[in-house]
Amino acid sequence: MLRVGIVGATGYTGCELVRLLSGHPKVTLTVITSRQHAGTAYTDIYPAMSGRVDLVCQPQDLGRVAAETDLVFLALPHEVSMTVAGPLLAAGCKVVDLSADFRFRDAALYEDAYQPHHAPELLDRAVYGLTEVYRDGIREAQLIGNPGCYPTSVLLPLAPLVAAGLVDPAGVIADCKSGVSGAGRSPSLAVHYCEVNESFKPYKVTTHRHNPEMEAILADIAGKPASLTFVPHLVPLTRGMQSTIYAGCTGDASADRIRACLREAYQAAPFVRIRDPGDIPDVLHVRGTNFCDIGFHWDAKRSGVILMSVIDNLLKGAAGQAVQNMNIMSGFDETDGLGFIPSAL
Amino acid sequence: MLRVGIVGATGYTGCELVRLLSGHPKVTLTVITSRQHAGTAYTDIYPAMSGRVDLVCQPQDLGRVAAETDLVFLALPHEVSMTVAGPLLAAGCKVVDLSADFRFRDAALYEDAYQPHHAPELLDRAVYGLTEVYRDGIREAQLIGNPGCYPTSVLLPLAPLVAAGLVDPAGVIADCKSGVSGAGRSPSLAVHYCEVNESFKPYKVTTHRHNPEMEAILADIAGKPASLTFVPHLVPLTRGMQSTIYAGCTGDASADRIRACLREAYQAAPFVRIRDPGDIPDVLHVRGTNFCDIGFHWDAKRSGVILMSVIDNLLKGAAGQAVQNMNIMSGFDETDGLGFIPSAL
Amino acid sequence: MLRVGIVGATGYTGCELVRLLSGHPKVTLTVITSRQHAGTAYTDIYPAMSGRVDLVCQPQDLGRVAAETDLVFLALPHEVSMTVAGPLLAAGCKVVDLSADFRFRDAALYEDAYQPHHAPELLDRAVYGLTEVYRDGIREAQLIGNPGCYPTSVLLPLAPLVAAGLVDPAGVIADCKSGVSGAGRSPSLAVHYCEVNESFKPYKVTTHRHNPEMEAILADIAGKPASLTFVPHLVPLTRGMQSTIYAGCTGDASADRIRACLREAYQAAPFVRIRDPGDIPDVLHVRGTNFCDIGFHWDAKRSGVILMSVIDNLLKGAAGQAVQNMNIMSGFDETDGLGFIPSAL
Amino acid sequence: MLRVGIVGATGYTGCELVRLLSGHPKVTLTVITSRQHAGTAYTDIYPAMSGRVDLVCQPQDLGRVAAETDLVFLALPHEVSMTVAGPLLAAGCKVVDLSADFRFRDAALYEDAYQPHHAPELLDRAVYGLTEVYRDGIREAQLIGNPGCYPTSVLLPLAPLVAAGLVDPAGVIADCKSGVSGAGRSPSLAVHYCEVNESFKPYKVTTHRHNPEMEAILADIAGKPASLTFVPHLVPLTRGMQSTIYAGCTGDASADRIRACLREAYQAAPFVRIRDPGDIPDVLHVRGTNFCDIGFHWDAKRSGVILMSVIDNLLKGAAGQAVQNMNIMSGFDETDGLGFIPSAL
Repeated sequence: MLRVGIVGATGYTGCELVRLLSGHPKVTLTVITSRQHAGTAYTDIYPAMSGRVDLVCQPQDLGRVAAETDLVFLALPHEVSMTVAGPLLAAGCKVVDLSADFRFRDAALYEDAYQPHHAPELLDRAVYGLTEVYRDGIREAQLIGNPGCYPTSVLLPLAPLVAAGLVDPAGVIADCKSGVSGAGRSPSLAVHYCEVNESFKPYKVTTHRHNPEMEAILADIAGKPASLTFVPHLVPLTRGMQSTIYAGCTGDASADRIRACLREAYQAAPFVRIRDPGDIPDVLHVRGTNFCDIGFHWDAKRSGVILMSVIDNLLKGAAGQAVQNMNIMSGFDETDGLGFIPSAL
Repeated sequence: MLRVGIVGATGYTGCELVRLLSGHPKVTLTVITSRQHAGTAYTDIYPAMSGRVDLVCQPQDLGRVAAETDLVFLALPHEVSMTVAGPLLAAGCKVVDLSADFRFRDAALYEDAYQPHHAPELLDRAVYGLTEVYRDGIREAQLIGNPGCYPTSVLLPLAPLVAAGLVDPAGVIADCKSGVSGAGRSPSLAVHYCEVNESFKPYKVTTHRHNPEMEAILADIAGKPASLTFVPHLVPLTRGMQSTIYAGCTGDASADRIRACLREAYQAAPFVRIRDPGDIPDVLHVRGTNFCDIGFHWDAKRSGVILMSVIDNLLKGAAGQAVQNMNIMSGFDETDGLGFIPSAL
Repeated sequence: MLRVGIVGATGYTGCELVRLLSGHPKVTLTVITSRQHAGTAYTDIYPAMSGRVDLVCQPQDLGRVAAETDLVFLALPHEVSMTVAGPLLAAGCKVVDLSADFRFRDAALYEDAYQPHHAPELLDRAVYGLTEVYRDGIREAQLIGNPGCYPTSVLLPLAPLVAAGLVDPAGVIADCKSGVSGAGRSPSLAVHYCEVNESFKPYKVTTHRHNPEMEAILADIAGKPASLTFVPHLVPLTRGMQSTIYAGCTGDASADRIRACLREAYQAAPFVRIRDPGDIPDVLHVRGTNFCDIGFHWDAKRSGVILMSVIDNLLKGAAGQAVQNMNIMSGFDETDGLGFIPSAL
Repeated sequence: MLRVGIVGATGYTGCELVRLLSGHPKVTLTVITSRQHAGTAYTDIYPAMSGRVDLVCQPQDLGRVAAETDLVFLALPHEVSMTVAGPLLAAGCKVVDLSADFRFRDAALYEDAYQPHHAPELLDRAVYGLTEVYRDGIREAQLIGNPGCYPTSVLLPLAPLVAAGLVDPAGVIADCKSGVSGAGRSPSLAVHYCEVNESFKPYKVTTHRHNPEMEAILADIAGKPASLTFVPHLVPLTRGMQSTIYAGCTGDASADRIRACLREAYQAAPFVRIRDPGDIPDVLHVRGTNFCDIGFHWDAKRSGVILMSVIDNLLKGAAGQAVQNMNIMSGFDETDGLGFIPSAL
């Protein structure tokens, strides 16, 4: 059994990691840490898990974490992760980081969007954990920068089409909608029930920090500069993320070629489902699963394509993809511990 | 025009008061105060009201409030209200207090449920603002203790039946359900969207502070001791409160007598609608209005009655009833400023 | 008092018309019809309105409707409206039609999107009821084709910018999201609570019939052809519609010019609020009102503009705008009966 | 592998059975039937399951079902089940029926609540499938009458206390709240999103057909007559059922004894969790699981107990308990295929 740990286990992402790893057939969850809740039984924080999870939050003692684990998930705020990853790697642990700290190869891009990077020497060792696109690198990686939820939902449909030269990586528009759990567990007026219920609105219009993350990866895939106009919206539901993407196509593209390209790219991917035209992806279809469902529509008026994707923002958009990456890094079957059959409601 | 003010205008109750009073045909809203937001335009806090409300939050200067108003609404936390009411009354203002501070005639009962009372000398002057029950006293009052939302929803159906001796004021059970706005605007984990959505649960089982408030008023109406087992629940919706009340009946009661008693008690009440058996009150029917809808069902098995009521917790349960009381105190038509036609959705 | 009637009063749009007109200070609602519910008290269908509305559904007898009214609202399915409007107009009634039947000047465009038109001779007499854009025509009109909800939300932000030549009417993208009431009151699996709750998805991708309606009006405003890629989405909330619109700009455009153009266009419009950058429109801010709130963001990457609008789909998107048009047709103040102060929740 | 089938697989209960049985380690789901959808791929009805479920709906050919299965689940309307069970039993299949047809031992009680019973000779062979209470009988049963969702939520907390003589089976009050999926998948105005969202109301007050079911089982457990006043309510959420139960206690009862009795009764039950006082059960804690969480509160005023329980109405309230019963009938571990770790949101 692989010994795994979670540093920062009490947020919503941590809580999904605890759930997934507690039920994983090939790992033992040996340690979970929380600075705020050290000493507290996990089920005192999350009573839902009573009787199924029997863990106590530990202080964030990295030496102990390293001693008790082979692989560690970091579910920490950005800027904190970068200081924790180094010591764990040095002690021989593999690290899957769910913050933004290791998603950029270029420290300057990171620093534009976030703040000074204190461990830039690790960036070269990090692999971007968009599993279906970087699977080969992930297999050999010691350090994963797990993607943001929006980038996962936007890049999975675009990646094969951009790589094949069918879609122009410049001038892409991504109109994305996220459930509220993406905002995390900290209380604020923005996530007060009465402010979200019966509400719908954009936020951080073109200024969201996932925008440069998406452009950097798109450019990496395309081998040339990419630009993307990204508008996130908040939807009154707990889990789920939907992206509608408007992209210009090159002369080679057609409805058939796009379909063929997507199908071929993901035919062996156990968590990507390419929908037929007319079978429109719905966040409810992937709730509680690690799937990304992708639909597409040829937009003759604009000689472009409309791509539609849905994920569960906490799973394929965070904890699920992190476990999927762990599976690949560890030589497990990619679906181990993630094989939930979706519920229809 | 009556000059009115609101002390503590930025919570959800204050915000509904601002809306109602801004649209009231016979009052001028001359001053609103907020310690936290003094100097801020009200529409910066509540952009929804842009173009319709043009007020700036003032510091809590009671002298100025008294000088500029004839009647003041206090939408303050309990314990704060009791220190504010006295000076305003002394300056000749009428006061409608929406906290718990003036709901009890007996300071000891208040102090059991809350904390020491610093203005017990005012309790005798305060009238409990359950409009339909204490209308005569309200007409002459200088100081109103506006009822809690749960007491309003529970007492309106019970009051006439208890007064008529058809229902036993002992051993009553009130199983009540409230929308989330009842918890106020302050962020906390308890009102985080993800903790409320798809959730339903009781809270403060038999320990809610509205319990002694209800028992005291029931006893006042009955002229003998009352006891009530009260279990509140949180429902995933923004506005609305539903109560299902199980009461034992006396030998005189019957389905017909209960119906007749309720209909007669409220035939002249513009905001109480007695539903026929089979026409079950729904919180959606009173959303955004000052109505209390009441249904009833004879429970032959228990020789008792099942009463069902619905209100909008922010209106008949708070700001609406406060304005209704102001109307009566000021000789206005009881429905002035409150005559919204309910929307079906 | 203007005598008004509603033909087809029992759907959600009809129900909002009943509510608005029952509370309107200058009209008398003399007749409402329903083929399905003739003879039924309106409050048996919508108990929420008990005590405030006292109407009985009448059979659809156009002669009687014409005799009892000066102006009639048609809240009927398309194809039915076109057969009803003629006789009412011939009898001297003004008509505000809420179906699609009189929204197109060109019968061929209508017939492409819907079905054969049986009263094409009336199309020339009809004025498109997008109030803020066609106010002058509406003032003189006998017959109004009230706009669809999506067109209202998309055209109000675009119209001044297209008219001023700042935005290119070709290649516009409208990513729109609607609450469920837009689907009407007829039960179906698509509006089953369990299929909508915790769901979010696009539908009728580029094939929605509001698409040609928007293109025709945009072209009329621009004086040249327009093309628009329109993707509607269903949001789990009852009332509200949000549109995020991505449009290319001409060389003359800039953030300042766009702001100035929008502000000037709507400075005298009582129901359009132009938001400052950073103050993002939210459907919750316009719930239950006739407002359209518009925000905008300069998209330097694409030399384009991102427009964001919100309306209540049943009010500014249907019944509210219809009443606003009636006000103008009748020489009333444009805000009569529509002056609700928005609630913040 | 046990060969199992589902007759009537396309409703919400059937859909959960398909999901659970497809993922069950010891069964093969050999046949699913649907009269309405015979010949249709299951994932055309429920696209969420694409890639994980590969079944086609079969016509309801009982001979074929019997030939291909060892145990059959009937997810049919009542009255239909009773005609199907006999032939399957005769052919040697075990049957778990999820309708009401085999929940009553006494045909007269059934016929009072439902309609004439056409297979009363089978009633003696049927065991009521409230697993934790009738586990021994279930082990040997050929035919299970799987309990209703409300009875499961009400009887699990009451059963041990009534059996121990601590709670009086007469005069019990059950105030219960159900999510919308309990109403099934058929579209109707009652489950239209706009009628349920922001709504909360009781329905079928004391007339719900689960009322006699609960009284009959309570009486069986108590060994004397039972009476129960039952008021169900509809909550705006998809999955979940909460019951607050007010019961009178006998002289022997106390808070400690109640706690001890509940804990002892369920100490070996893998799906019942007794909560400490103050740790209040929430439907969100059991969403997607087979758990029943039970809380309790001593009500000194009434010398009674307040019991609070939560279940997922589609799982412990239907499909989950059915699979649990199958496990016991088949000698499997009771938790096989049901061991989901609850998610906190």
